[in-house]
Amino acid sequence: MITLASDFGTPYPAAMKGVLCQRTTAKLIDVAHDFPRQDVRAAAFWLREVLPYFPPATHLVVIDPGVGTDRHALVVRAGEHTLVGPDNGVLIPVAKRLAGDGAFDTYTIDETRLEAVTPTGNGAPSSGRATAQAPSRDGPASNTFHGRDVFAPAAAAVHETDRDTFADLEWLTPLETSPVALELPEAALENECAHGEVLVVDDFGNVITNVPGDFLAGHDRIAANGTVVPVGETFAAVSPGERLATVGSHGYVELDVNQGRGEAAFGLEAGEQLVLEAVGEE
Amino acid sequence: MITLASDFGTPYPAAMKGVLCQRTTAKLIDVAHDFPRQDVRAAAFWLREVLPYFPPATHLVVIDPGVGTDRHALVVRAGEHTLVGPDNGVLIPVAKRLAGDGAFDTYTIDETRLEAVTPTGNGAPSSGRATAQAPSRDGPASNTFHGRDVFAPAAAAVHETDRDTFADLEWLTPLETSPVALELPEAALENECAHGEVLVVDDFGNVITNVPGDFLAGHDRIAANGTVVPVGETFAAVSPGERLATVGSHGYVELDVNQGRGEAAFGLEAGEQLVLEAVGEE
Amino acid sequence: MITLASDFGTPYPAAMKGVLCQRTTAKLIDVAHDFPRQDVRAAAFWLREVLPYFPPATHLVVIDPGVGTDRHALVVRAGEHTLVGPDNGVLIPVAKRLAGDGAFDTYTIDETRLEAVTPTGNGAPSSGRATAQAPSRDGPASNTFHGRDVFAPAAAAVHETDRDTFADLEWLTPLETSPVALELPEAALENECAHGEVLVVDDFGNVITNVPGDFLAGHDRIAANGTVVPVGETFAAVSPGERLATVGSHGYVELDVNQGRGEAAFGLEAGEQLVLEAVGEE
Repeated sequence: MITLASDFGTPYPAAMKGVLCQRTTAKLIDVAHDFPRQDVRAAAFWLREVLPYFPPATHLVVIDPGVGTDRHALVVRAGEHTLVGPDNGVLIPVAKRLAGDGAFDTYTIDETRLEAVTPTGNGAPSSGRATAQAPSRDGPASNTFHGRDVFAPAAAAVHETDRDTFADLEWLTPLETSPVALELPEAALENECAHGEVLVVDDFGNVITNVPGDFLAGHDRIAANGTVVPVGETFAAVSPGERLATVGSHGYVELDVNQGRGEAAFGLEAGEQLVLEAVGEE
Repeated sequence: MITLASDFGTPYPAAMKGVLCQRTTAKLIDVAHDFPRQDVRAAAFWLREVLPYFPPATHLVVIDPGVGTDRHALVVRAGEHTLVGPDNGVLIPVAKRLAGDGAFDTYTIDETRLEAVTPTGNGAPSSGRATAQAPSRDGPASNTFHGRDVFAPAAAAVHETDRDTFADLEWLTPLETSPVALELPEAALENECAHGEVLVVDDFGNVITNVPGDFLAGHDRIAANGTVVPVGETFAAVSPGERLATVGSHGYVELDVNQGRGEAAFGLEAGEQLVLEAVGEE
Repeated sequence: MITLASDFGTPYPAAMKGVLCQRTTAKLIDVAHDFPRQDVRAAAFWLREVLPYFPPATHLVVIDPGVGTDRHALVVRAGEHTLVGPDNGVLIPVAKRLAGDGAFDTYTIDETRLEAVTPTGNGAPSSGRATAQAPSRDGPASNTFHGRDVFAPAAAAVHETDRDTFADLEWLTPLETSPVALELPEAALENECAHGEVLVVDDFGNVITNVPGDFLAGHDRIAANGTVVPVGETFAAVSPGERLATVGSHGYVELDVNQGRGEAAFGLEAGEQLVLEAVGEE
């Protein structure tokens, strides 16, 4: 099985699927292709929360604002899963999660030695390739779409290869440095107060914080940046349109509105600082 | 085959797919994940119109504003199909359709006896689970994402089980009461006049009413809430940008604009009342 | 393998998938269902650029503003691929590309002789079929959804048929006339100046022109409609928020903004005329 995640919208993911289908009969499953554009942190969060629910698989991840630069292209072996994507941190939180308490192995892709992607027919896209500002070089057909030209062929190839023999692939080399780091922020907890941050806002408008859900235990109300709201075990603990704090499906405190949009009601968006204070009875 | 329908947007459906793939190799087909949020009636309409085109399958449906409350979680056996979703009426119109003139069987899921969903790795979402306002209880990892923690595992399990032996599954019990009812409204017809309602507006902006298409037979013009428009057999019966009434692909009268948006042109949205009058020659 | 492309949004593509799954076990891959509504040219461009990356497959294409009129429904055999869709030009650029330097064969579908689509259960959509303005006739259940009632069953059937024996299918007849033509415009190049056009704007906001990428070779700046911007080999060649010209993944000059939206910054949209002038050092 190969999963696909990107910030591409459509129809670019289909070109990746075509390349994959040319090289493997693996089942393809979309994770999402509408991650916030070039938002490495948001994608890193979602991948960490979603990919662990899959059985062992190859995960193709292309959130890649540095496409075409000299950033590395990576293959990461984490637990029983394999991740393929750019070296910008997007793979790191999920790699740690998938590896459990163990380490993960990181390889770098030599894109000049990957089998080239060749579309059917005449007038192939590479025919108009610019050589502006750069001497001709070996490499992928495009400088702007490595999802199609580098990551998809690499994902298909590693999916078709025994995971214990990645080192035998001539285009794959153990990364000698550390991959680019990305740490999702952790909340600071003291007594009845949590200093945290909004990690993401989901498609429902739920404000997902980095405060562990246990913070709510034993309280019936909290203050979020000074606004007091009830603690509910379900959205329906309050009337439609009313605000609440609850433990979301990721185990964190979420600030929500029953059948409404929490981010509008609380005036919060991803990356904003947040203070939660327990005000209810313990 | 398992189909998936929800109002989740992304990437929550991927977590459900991961859980399914851990437990079954069934082909997965998306029906839609952008149904109007928490709009049980709209989803009920679309499921009734779309699912009957599938071969016998298991259909996972999660439009669930009451998630985490004591609403039942259902498995419905209707004709050769199996439906899995919340007991809020969303499954009923399609269950009736799929059962043809027969009855359908309804079971309730005991979520405390379902095999638990366990993600790979450390820091699993359930670790931060709140116990706020409630003593610890057996149950799913989350109170807000039963699609992942209840409905997906249940769908995988019933898909892997002979439909005649559902009663043998220890976590499935025949529902002793009636499921929550949901009737899509029917138009009242008298002579040359129909009193109906807008069921939904589709992604093209077509206004789909509950007036049977036969109402248009023999007429070349109708009045919709007083506005006279031509009756056309195809969108192209009128010029681009012009309004018309036609028989849509669901068999109902639709109010449309050729290559434009009917809901804007007619000023109508889902749930609004509508009077259609035949004014053309019969 | 069958790919699906349309301008349907959701959930109409699911009805097509149900029909396909009733008739074939082929793997189904979505190309896109959010192509600009009824925009035959935009879809023709994207299909030409994306479908050649697939292995030999059947491609179901429904961008069909003339649905229900007497426009033909086509099956096109191009290279090792088969295309199914309306005769409005949308299939032509990709057919030429897939056929390489060869010709492609075009057949027309007699929809009255196709096996009818029959949903499960009672109250089937066709029950309310209008006969307004037309005597009853043989044909598909709907006049507005040939994706479900004509193209999907045709795609399933040709997918299950040896490509050399299409002529044996009683509902398929070699097209005696030429299919409706559609030529994507080509840029006029003279010395250091290109007179071109915006073909499409992609989901990132990148302005994709029809000027071949080679135009940029050896230049470090160009003027686009008079605005001078640097030529970059990658988006990251300029700072985030800065404009550039680059060679996109289709081999054409694109006008982009690093991590921003080119169409807004350049004030250009699909179909607009464009003059590119080389102003940098050669």
